[in-house]
Amino acid sequence: MKLATTRSDNGTQAVLDDGVDVRRLPFADVGVALRSGKLASLDVSALPIEPNTHRLRFAPLLPNASKVVCVGHNYAAHIAEMGHEPPKYPTVFSKFSSALVGANDPICLDTAASSWDWEAELAVVVGAPLRRATNAQARAGIAGYSVANDVSARDWQRRTSQWLLGKTFDQTSPIGPWLVSGDEVDDASDLLLTCSVDGVIKQQARTSDLVFKPADLLVYLSHVTELQPGDVVLTGTPGGVGAARTPAEWLLPGQILETSIEGLGSCRNECVADPAAT
Amino acid sequence: MKLATTRSDNGTQAVLDDGVDVRRLPFADVGVALRSGKLASLDVSALPIEPNTHRLRFAPLLPNASKVVCVGHNYAAHIAEMGHEPPKYPTVFSKFSSALVGANDPICLDTAASSWDWEAELAVVVGAPLRRATNAQARAGIAGYSVANDVSARDWQRRTSQWLLGKTFDQTSPIGPWLVSGDEVDDASDLLLTCSVDGVIKQQARTSDLVFKPADLLVYLSHVTELQPGDVVLTGTPGGVGAARTPAEWLLPGQILETSIEGLGSCRNECVADPAAT
Repeated sequence: MKLATTRSDNGTQAVLDDGVDVRRLPFADVGVALRSGKLASLDVSALPIEPNTHRLRFAPLLPNASKVVCVGHNYAAHIAEMGHEPPKYPTVFSKFSSALVGANDPICLDTAASSWDWEAELAVVVGAPLRRATNAQARAGIAGYSVANDVSARDWQRRTSQWLLGKTFDQTSPIGPWLVSGDEVDDASDLLLTCSVDGVIKQQARTSDLVFKPADLLVYLSHVTELQPGDVVLTGTPGGVGAARTPAEWLLPGQILETSIEGLGSCRNECVADPAAT
Repeated sequence: MKLATTRSDNGTQAVLDDGVDVRRLPFADVGVALRSGKLASLDVSALPIEPNTHRLRFAPLLPNASKVVCVGHNYAAHIAEMGHEPPKYPTVFSKFSSALVGANDPICLDTAASSWDWEAELAVVVGAPLRRATNAQARAGIAGYSVANDVSARDWQRRTSQWLLGKTFDQTSPIGPWLVSGDEVDDASDLLLTCSVDGVIKQQARTSDLVFKPADLLVYLSHVTELQPGDVVLTGTPGGVGAARTPAEWLLPGQILETSIEGLGSCRNECVADPAAT
């Protein structure tokens, strides 16, 4: 099963792809749908069919997520190439949901920052309340997986010890297009993740290289806070970011950032200057 | 003018203290009231009077704040006593609104953490959308001030470079009881802030010692994200935290944490073990 949040003439509209048709759900977005607790009991065949499937305009998958949790240092090969020891605990930070954009939206590169970088990531979406969860509870509480890019303003990220501001500029982080349930992708255990800029591949890794797996992360986080349906965790990025290249490479207005995960889909976003040059 | 979010039999209820009476507002909480944009045009005299003022039960001032922004290293004397240079940029991190508790609620000290510490702070509440704001716009966009304590699990805060998890355990951070408008407290420019544990004063400072003032912080943040009515910024804590004492001191179940700011009020919270010992 696949869900998405699409733009409609008067806001947003959650849709469901049952493999044959795309149907309109009676919810404004995927987060509202997950929190309703009514997805499992819906009579999908009774829902209106979306006629213009090829014209779907994707909004951020979870436009009002109350928790967008992010993880750093979580791909084993990248940690090793940086000469670091495997981490004992996940490095956890957050961004505000106002940072999220849809799968084909522009990425707004604020001209107040000078070093915009890419971070392709597997996103895990929570489907049930999780508090001090076991691994089995966490697995059962995953609504599905999606594609995200934790686009980062490295200069702002490094102004102080805390990364938040470099990670949460408005309208910078693509997430979508679809939320794909675990049964369709073997629980995202070994998917190829790719990030390219103007068609040149910059990052490529498999999710099997994640140190802390999706369920591990939900278990850990659930000891701090009760995770709710519609919360999302970006699981970290592999090697190949612009900051680690010699010389460093940064995203520029006009470039196309493409983030893809096998079985989940692709975000394809144009970078634009914000505010736009006049 | 003073606003609060109180508990009612079926949820929460925003109230207004006009200096004579406490009246019930047609909003579920202070955040909803601020976002409505209707506070200025309300006919206060027509609102129902709350009869049991002495029995008000305070909920978290902003139970569903979409942005709870926190600042570190922001009191000049404390920075100097630690031997640090004055910071060029504010250190900014966040917590989730699920960490907030009301002015007299229990503080849930998770037994999975071992070093619970206090951080008394002035809270600034946003009253108008602010994006790339000037200082004058930021001043005009402040709804008011309140009292908060950024209670922190130091062991979890220090597990990695990023502080988030040590700062966002559910039900740990008091905020309230009242949101007080700037005209009542000279824009909170020089208020005495005090933190005590079981009646023993641990922190005492004046808000005039803040390096980055409330409006400065809103200007800076508004370059990253559009601040919205009901967003809140905790402006940092002065010296005297438990971690900086010799030997270090930590909060324990049964202790009373009291956080007060002259003109704004006090939070008085009992620490309890979570989960409760059986």
